[in-house]
Formats: sequence, structure tokens, C-alpha cells
Amino acid sequence: MRLRFHRSLDDLNEKLLVMAGMAEQSIQRAVEAYRVRDLSICDLVDRGEVAINRIEREIDQMALDLLAMEQPMAIDLRFTLAVIKINADLERVGDSARSISDRVRDLQRLPQVEVPVDIPKMGSLATDMVRKSIQSFIEADADMAEAVLTMDDSVDKLNRSAHTTALVMMKEKPESAAQALHVLMISRALERVADHATNVAEDVIFWVRGADVRHHVREADGVDTQSMPAN
Amino acid sequence: MRLRFHRSLDDLNEKLLVMAGMAEQSIQRAVEAYRVRDLSICDLVDRGEVAINRIEREIDQMALDLLAMEQPMAIDLRFTLAVIKINADLERVGDSARSISDRVRDLQRLPQVEVPVDIPKMGSLATDMVRKSIQSFIEADADMAEAVLTMDDSVDKLNRSAHTTALVMMKEKPESAAQALHVLMISRALERVADHATNVAEDVIFWVRGADVRHHVREADGVDTQSMPAN
Repeated sequence: MRLRFHRSLDDLNEKLLVMAGMAEQSIQRAVEAYRVRDLSICDLVDRGEVAINRIEREIDQMALDLLAMEQPMAIDLRFTLAVIKINADLERVGDSARSISDRVRDLQRLPQVEVPVDIPKMGSLATDMVRKSIQSFIEADADMAEAVLTMDDSVDKLNRSAHTTALVMMKEKPESAAQALHVLMISRALERVADHATNVAEDVIFWVRGADVRHHVREADGVDTQSMPAN
Repeated sequence: MRLRFHRSLDDLNEKLLVMAGMAEQSIQRAVEAYRVRDLSICDLVDRGEVAINRIEREIDQMALDLLAMEQPMAIDLRFTLAVIKINADLERVGDSARSISDRVRDLQRLPQVEVPVDIPKMGSLATDMVRKSIQSFIEADADMAEAVLTMDDSVDKLNRSAHTTALVMMKEKPESAAQALHVLMISRALERVADHATNVAEDVIFWVRGADVRHHVREADGVDTQSMPAN
């Protein structure tokens, strides 16, 4: 009985790792498609998203079955719920890859212009965050998860700077506004990937520490949470 | 024992409704702040987001306690898992409201120009979708949830048209590019709210029908899911 239970947990864990690998790869591919302007890589991203959607279902069903049949307690229950939440975030990483791939197709129809935004750097940071957030989950390492939260600041900063760059370009070379806008949207998609990794890291902290540190940064900023209207 | 169990489920349900009301209100307020350019409404949105974050934790903890102590079966288990997923989406609706409020502040620092994008209409559609998706959950009505999926197409269409409008403006009046970009970002934030409502509707269908119809549209588009690479 407990053997079967632990096998189910292991299977779930393994499946989530496959999902995470696919999500990471989809971002790497989308950024590569942008870098070398290769629409055949866009096709891979699009098909990968469909595969990610399918595996998301399978993971949810496995988690549901496990909860229904094994009724895990305490730490195993927390683990299973964390999987369900992390699964949803990884699926949306796939959506972001797909958005990037759509933008690369749009760019391909326009004259090529240099937009000085370091998309590969942002992509590599965002992918690192996804990898590290999942690793922190596997190793139940809340400190590693905390490190992911810090990395998010770098991506946000790069995205803000992409915004400024795009805006300058729109003003100085209005004929290239469309290209600048597409690149900005790619930058935002990567920022969103980083947000999903952050959500994963927060779930790990909630799960490992048993205490919820989500939203800690904003509240530490000194916003008064006591004088809130009830609704 | 069962009485206590049903009381816990009712409490969870009620709390989720409060959360949904706050999420809806935050979008309505953010759009109103944009419409009348009133920064005091932005302050309400920002404080509301902190309150939404707090209630998200409370709901997750209630759901975790319920699963740990009552070990619900079948339909009640599905209900509880749906609450956990819907909760995460509602929290992100609050994040979108906050993004809009940030953009309204940015716009306030710039000369006011007319950007012909119907933000109030998008806001009202997106809010309706959130309301309807939650109602479909309360009433366990998969048909109503299906209707939400259809509404998403209208919001996507409005967002694409906002993209075109903003781009024309950037080219013809580059001096107003910043304002056009901010309005476009507000449009995208509302499109994202619609996406979250869509996620909720998909969770309702999964929960009510016991079968996962997530991602049904894209797969119905005829993408070949069989010839997918394994990774």
C-alpha cells in the first residue's frame, strides 16, 4: 500500500520534470527562432505547446487520482498540491513561448531592423529561473527558491530598459515602430516567464516551509494592509 | 463529522466569492481610474491588490486544511482542487489591475492625447467574463463556462485592433508614441484578465464534467498532436 503510494508520488514527480524540461526547451527554442529568424523553429515551438498542454492534463489527472486513492497526509499532501500549482505555471510558460513564436513570424514579414534589446540574455535568465525553481522543488530547498525571487528583479529591469529602448526607436524612426513593438512584446513574454518561475518558487517556499511567503516583497515595501476596505 | 465537513466546504466557497468580488472590483476601479484619470482610484487599486494577495493565502490554507482533515472524495475533492486553481487565477486578475493602475500613473505624467481604443468596453467584457466564470463554478454549469470561452474571442479581437490602432498612431504621431504604448499595455492587461477568466472556465468544465476540455480549441484547429517529438 505505502509502496504503491510512493511509486505514485515518484511517477508524478518524474512527469513534472518532463513537463518542466519541455517548458524550458520551448523558451530556448523560441528565443533561438528570434535570434536566427528561423520559422521552422517556430513550428517546433507551436507543436511543443500542444504537447505541453497534453501533459498538463495528464499531470492534473495523476494528482487527482493520487489524492482520491491514497489520501496523502501532511508533507505528501503539500507536495501534491504544489505539483498542481506548478503544473499550471509551466503550461503558461509554453503559452509565452508560443507568443514569442507568433511575434517572430510577424517580424519575418517586415524589413529587418536592428532593435537593441538583448533578447537572448533575457531568455537565458528566464530559462535559468525556470530551471532553478524546479530544482528548488525537487530538492525541497527554500533558499534556492528565494534566489529565484531575486533573479526576477534582473529580468524586470531588462524589460523596463527594453521599454525605453523601444520607445526611443518609435520616436526617432517611426517607420520601424512595428518592429520595435514586436521586440518589446517578446521582452514582455520573457518577463512573464520569469513571473511564472517566481510563482513556482513561491509555491516551493509555501510547501517547504509550510508558511506562505508569497507577496512578501510588496508587503515589506510598507504598504499598509490593515486599513484595507473590506471589499 | 459530515456536518463540519460541509460547513468547511461552504466557508471555502464563500471565501472564494469574496475573492472573486474583490478581483472584479479591482478591474472596474482600474478602468475607471483610466477613464477619469483619477490617481486616488489608483491608490484604491493598489491597496486592493495587497488585500487580494492576503485572501489568496487564506483560501489556500483553508483548502489545504480541508484536504488534510476531511479527506474529501470524488466531487468534493474536485471542487476543492478547482478552488485552489481558480484562486491563483483571481490573484493574477488583481495583478493585472495593478499593472493598469501603474500605466494610468505613467499616462498622468504625459500630455493627454486621444488614443482611440475602447478600454471601458474591453474592461466591461473582461469583468463580465470573470463574473460569469465564477457563476458557472457556483452553479456547476459547464454550458455557462463554455460561453466564457466564446467571449474570450471578442476580447482578443479588441486587443488585436488596439494593437493596430496604437501602431498607426506611433507612425503618424511619433510624439504620442508613449501614450499609445501605455494604452496598448492597458489593453493587453485586460486581455490577460480575459485569459484568467478563460482558465477558470476551463477548470469548471474539468471539475463539472470530470473530463478535461482545456486546450480544446487549439487542438480542434487541426494541429497534429500525434507526430509530436517525445521531448
